[in-house]
Amino acid sequence: MYTVTVRDHMMIAHSFRGDVFGPAQRLHGATYVVDASFSGPELGPDGILLDIGAATELLHEVLGELTYRNLDDDPAFSGTNTSTEVLARTVADRLAVRATGLGPVERLVVTLHESHVAWASYERAL
Amino acid sequence: MYTVTVRDHMMIAHSFRGDVFGPAQRLHGATYVVDASFSGPELGPDGILLDIGAATELLHEVLGELTYRNLDDDPAFSGTNTSTEVLARTVADRLAVRATGLGPVERLVVTLHESHVAWASYERAL
Amino acid sequence: MYTVTVRDHMMIAHSFRGDVFGPAQRLHGATYVVDASFSGPELGPDGILLDIGAATELLHEVLGELTYRNLDDDPAFSGTNTSTEVLARTVADRLAVRATGLGPVERLVVTLHESHVAWASYERAL
Amino acid sequence: MYTVTVRDHMMIAHSFRGDVFGPAQRLHGATYVVDASFSGPELGPDGILLDIGAATELLHEVLGELTYRNLDDDPAFSGTNTSTEVLARTVADRLAVRATGLGPVERLVVTLHESHVAWASYERAL
Amino acid sequence: MYTVTVRDHMMIAHSFRGDVFGPAQRLHGATYVVDASFSGPELGPDGILLDIGAATELLHEVLGELTYRNLDDDPAFSGTNTSTEVLARTVADRLAVRATGLGPVERLVVTLHESHVAWASYERAL
Amino acid sequence: MYTVTVRDHMMIAHSFRGDVFGPAQRLHGATYVVDASFSGPELGPDGILLDIGAATELLHEVLGELTYRNLDDDPAFSGTNTSTEVLARTVADRLAVRATGLGPVERLVVTLHESHVAWASYERAL
Repeated sequence: MYTVTVRDHMMIAHSFRGDVFGPAQRLHGATYVVDASFSGPELGPDGILLDIGAATELLHEVLGELTYRNLDDDPAFSGTNTSTEVLARTVADRLAVRATGLGPVERLVVTLHESHVAWASYERAL
Repeated sequence: MYTVTVRDHMMIAHSFRGDVFGPAQRLHGATYVVDASFSGPELGPDGILLDIGAATELLHEVLGELTYRNLDDDPAFSGTNTSTEVLARTVADRLAVRATGLGPVERLVVTLHESHVAWASYERAL
Repeated sequence: MYTVTVRDHMMIAHSFRGDVFGPAQRLHGATYVVDASFSGPELGPDGILLDIGAATELLHEVLGELTYRNLDDDPAFSGTNTSTEVLARTVADRLAVRATGLGPVERLVVTLHESHVAWASYERAL
Repeated sequence: MYTVTVRDHMMIAHSFRGDVFGPAQRLHGATYVVDASFSGPELGPDGILLDIGAATELLHEVLGELTYRNLDDDPAFSGTNTSTEVLARTVADRLAVRATGLGPVERLVVTLHESHVAWASYERAL
Repeated sequence: MYTVTVRDHMMIAHSFRGDVFGPAQRLHGATYVVDASFSGPELGPDGILLDIGAATELLHEVLGELTYRNLDDDPAFSGTNTSTEVLARTVADRLAVRATGLGPVERLVVTLHESHVAWASYERAL
Repeated sequence: MYTVTVRDHMMIAHSFRGDVFGPAQRLHGATYVVDASFSGPELGPDGILLDIGAATELLHEVLGELTYRNLDDDPAFSGTNTSTEVLARTVADRLAVRATGLGPVERLVVTLHESHVAWASYERAL
């Protein structure tokens, strides 16, 4: 099994609802360093699983819909806490829709690093 | 599948028995930077797999039983080399016992980084 | 010259005023991984420049005044862009006021990492 | 399941054939920071999955066949693009042949980091 | 004193002349992860030392002249070993020529990371 | 000014005397990831400040005198706490004695990373 990963980041504001979040119920923000890992069992004819440049652009395009925004105002997350887990899934699902031409990839893991001591990921089929 | 990881560290002394260990048979020590990764297929009602703050506290509590100690004197490791692999399992098993209330988690991976060029992990069900 | 550094982080929301900031004029946010480096020419009687535990607590206390907040609402930054540079100076100045008992330190550098590709620091005397 | 990882690096020149590679069709080069991860379900009698020192030497030996070379001149890659994916598989396959005495290992993942924003890996049975 | 750093990378081929280089006399290559650090004593009117976006573009432009090339064929390095030190100075000197409009910066440090265990930098006035 | 840095590590046991150290008064240990940075204003005739391979060997040789040992038993540290600061100076002083042939270097900084959240360094002339 081959896996190729590309990294980018986004910077967002948000707040959480629920006592479990403590001070994170206040409006605050985060830089998410985002890793998108694409996996597949075989390489394509050029000897690559996918074009790293194209994967980088695709990730940048998906993160461009979220970065420099207050996610509390984004209708896509209405009624949902934009936790690191939820955002990892959102990025993964949006990548999956557009990744069809990237190459013979079957699985995708998206990891969001929220600090040097915490990160979360979502894994799904493509 | 969602995965949430939190990081902490511990600083211990120990020695190893067995010719394979060479100079590490002498009393020496290590900083282990410890990553605990909890995985589950669904998020809870607050949109999170688990409370990152609670997971951080739990990891800190488990590492608190080991850090700033000479593991050669700890009865829990009597007759066992406290290799990075054994310590990864120890931390994972101790986390598993206490992780029952953390959230809908099914698997756990604990990784101990012993230097910038070597690390080991143990994976188990919860 | 000796230097001791401790690391922590904060997660804030803010927006910038000025065309130069482009999309960062919108309300967004950042995780800042913060390194505080204390320097001095001599060690104290215990063979340390300062107590790393005390420095860690001091940094955590100073960051606790900023984290999980929208800095646009903080009167301390009224009329000022809370750029990475400004926040590095703010953290350094607040550390300096309270660092008097830490040890024989003469200089302080505070570095705020805003992503894996950008960071800023402020250096001052103590 | 236990996993032990060791890290080393190699520095090579190469060029790629295929329009998808754009400027990387020119002769250029890369540092690959290489992680080799060995996994198995049980530890050996010394309480380790394998000897980290022996694994480090084995990885260094395999990378020694590739480093400080122009891979365009290496007959092993005749007719093949030496993409990060292909090189990850090459290192994994060469490790697998020689890893028989390392310990009770069943799987191997080799990851090649080509920069701070891109890496690739190959996973196989042992 | 304020310092702002931005990071990018380049991937080049080259060889060295001189017995001291051992196997690096052969044609090989490197990924250099490049940090450019700009320093100045005061912030500009927008509360920033410089526009991080503009600094990032400037660094990318300078690295674009070197990346994906065999530096042995670049007349700019005729008769010179393209060591990490020489390349750090080259990048710094080329940044310095074009950094005049970036902001009130006085010093520049360029660091090239050639692997996880070695890096070099060049510092100069602006 | 040019600076070249090489990285290695050591794993030691020790204990501290003094109430300020709290639980670190017990016998424990640490991995120190060690960076040695050599600086000088000019390059030598080969276009390098020093031979990175020779610097790496020199650092490995100096760390070899300390690693895999209980520093409480080392007469060199009799009556001294082997704090991160003291060890940074020890490594720097021992490097300085032997660095005379390395190249036109004038200053040396040695940094010991004791965890992902704390490190210390010592800077001196050569």
